[in-house]
Amino acid sequence: MQGTITLLTDFGTADGYVAELKGVLMTSVPGVQVVDLSHDISPHAIDDARLAVARYWRRFPAGTIHLVVVDPGVGSERRALAVASDGRFLVGPDNGVLSPALLLPGVEVVSIPIAAGAAPTFHGRDVFAPAAAALARSARLDSLGVPCADPVIRRTPEVQREADGGLRGEVILIDRFGNAVTNLLGAHGELLVGQRAIPVRRAYADVAPGEVVALVGSSGLLEIAVRDGSAAMTLGLTRGSPVRCAGIDRHT
Amino acid sequence: MQGTITLLTDFGTADGYVAELKGVLMTSVPGVQVVDLSHDISPHAIDDARLAVARYWRRFPAGTIHLVVVDPGVGSERRALAVASDGRFLVGPDNGVLSPALLLPGVEVVSIPIAAGAAPTFHGRDVFAPAAAALARSARLDSLGVPCADPVIRRTPEVQREADGGLRGEVILIDRFGNAVTNLLGAHGELLVGQRAIPVRRAYADVAPGEVVALVGSSGLLEIAVRDGSAAMTLGLTRGSPVRCAGIDRHT
Amino acid sequence: MQGTITLLTDFGTADGYVAELKGVLMTSVPGVQVVDLSHDISPHAIDDARLAVARYWRRFPAGTIHLVVVDPGVGSERRALAVASDGRFLVGPDNGVLSPALLLPGVEVVSIPIAAGAAPTFHGRDVFAPAAAALARSARLDSLGVPCADPVIRRTPEVQREADGGLRGEVILIDRFGNAVTNLLGAHGELLVGQRAIPVRRAYADVAPGEVVALVGSSGLLEIAVRDGSAAMTLGLTRGSPVRCAGIDRHT
Repeated sequence: MQGTITLLTDFGTADGYVAELKGVLMTSVPGVQVVDLSHDISPHAIDDARLAVARYWRRFPAGTIHLVVVDPGVGSERRALAVASDGRFLVGPDNGVLSPALLLPGVEVVSIPIAAGAAPTFHGRDVFAPAAAALARSARLDSLGVPCADPVIRRTPEVQREADGGLRGEVILIDRFGNAVTNLLGAHGELLVGQRAIPVRRAYADVAPGEVVALVGSSGLLEIAVRDGSAAMTLGLTRGSPVRCAGIDRHT
Repeated sequence: MQGTITLLTDFGTADGYVAELKGVLMTSVPGVQVVDLSHDISPHAIDDARLAVARYWRRFPAGTIHLVVVDPGVGSERRALAVASDGRFLVGPDNGVLSPALLLPGVEVVSIPIAAGAAPTFHGRDVFAPAAAALARSARLDSLGVPCADPVIRRTPEVQREADGGLRGEVILIDRFGNAVTNLLGAHGELLVGQRAIPVRRAYADVAPGEVVALVGSSGLLEIAVRDGSAAMTLGLTRGSPVRCAGIDRHT
Repeated sequence: MQGTITLLTDFGTADGYVAELKGVLMTSVPGVQVVDLSHDISPHAIDDARLAVARYWRRFPAGTIHLVVVDPGVGSERRALAVASDGRFLVGPDNGVLSPALLLPGVEVVSIPIAAGAAPTFHGRDVFAPAAAALARSARLDSLGVPCADPVIRRTPEVQREADGGLRGEVILIDRFGNAVTNLLGAHGELLVGQRAIPVRRAYADVAPGEVVALVGSSGLLEIAVRDGSAAMTLGLTRGSPVRCAGIDRHT
């Protein structure tokens, strides 16, 4: 085995773009292990990709190379980045999608030059994949480009403390099950969605089927769920929907 | 290569849950081969997953570890299982999803303890993946938990014999092509959907485009198809739709 | 590692058909590397698959085996093919899906016999996978079947030269981003969709968000895009929609 490269894109797979990218990797690095993480990020959904990256990037072994291509600015002046952080490598556009790794102390970032022949619509194939392949062949990060001191950072919106001591957060993600993940970290007491008070419990199964519940999800964030249903549909929640909370332990 | 673990989930891939799970496996078992089977099982669709498991679990080599996470009861009292059957291993929730392997003679089943720190919303990452990883590192099944004598079994509805000697079955699955798979095993003669008689042929191509046909599908079950179309849409079939048959050879 | 087999199908993954096929491959060829390219080709969309194959088949290393199963004629008299072209192998139905490799000089093609026990609804599992597995075990192409001199070829519609010297092409593919890929290769000047003149630029980012642009895509074909939007939806384009162009360099 010659290195592991994970892939996260918004390409879907039907058009053959992912297939081309894999071909480039496997030709450049004989024996490389290519691991699909997702190609179903919504087109151009930088924040969805950023939140997924936050979940997984440090779950993989040291030395793993994470290739992340959600790149609405392809062909513009936006930079292409290669990053070393906490023993892992990440390669992707400079649009904030790599923020979870960029926020760590000790991170190293270089800006990768765009080769003259690179297709201005497909840097995934012609810029990012070659950089990931070079890392898999044990190239040094600083051999891939020039240091970049000011990469674009995107952050989850901060929780606000209100005059009455309560906390005001918002929905940051609706997952496949219709769970509404908020930016509130951990929780005591009730969660308020509009005038509706939602009990905070330990697990989905702590309420009856069809009932609304809040709980601390698997990344530590408070989320709203409907047991055997969709909280997003039941409560009309979308990204950005406000939520309130009193008696929270701490917030992010 | 250090073991092979297959994955079947209802997670989709866009939220990063599958990515986290893969990271756990690859960190726990350096060199493990992780094989995606599907992450597109409909949310909470235990029977869809069970039918898929029935199709594939014995197609893989002896020693393969099948991780199956379709788990609406996560965080409840439902048990977590590890299973050895016909030389393969399976890991998943005790909700019937592993039934195809549980029904074989000689099956061994253990109930895996839920670690105190496991997220009550994500046993895939914190309970099932670690158990699959342990098996990939050659742990003995009985080291993973205590014997379980009464795992939950789910079965395909049985075919009924009618007073006139005919057989009454039902649609158990609509596949991606709109084919309606029934619980009737093999067939002679016609299939009846309501008052409509559908000829039984050998292959889709044995009727003209747009015509309805019944045939024995690749798992031995009688299915209804429309050549170059969707039987489900043409005939209004859904799971549970009744079908009748005379002169069948044998039934399941 | 014992050979690399890539998979392109229209099966989706939820029904377990892909899982079965992978099980057959991994049982037949211990240590084989199976690479998912797509299972999301629209059902029976031979031309979509053909265009994807054109993108990727030569991006992979020599010796790669490409298994392509988009097969509306399964169970009919259509032949099953194994192909050697430019150092790669391809296996799939004789319906034009393999055309990109068949059009190259020096291609070798054999017709694979259909074993008596093959399910007439699932040659992917029972005919094509075993042939790909044999190639991965280093079988000679000519050991798999008899030479086939007249495989079915499908081609992208040709660009027409009009009386006034202009070129008339058409949309051949709508991709996931709503980009409308045409059969015009490279371009100067404007592209005309009906009476609307669309400027040809280098990259999506060369126009403002929401504006329509034409550009040379990553496979060399002229495509119509809307920056941060969908050209297909904005302009009502579908496959076959006519486009016109003057001053083009060359055409395919």
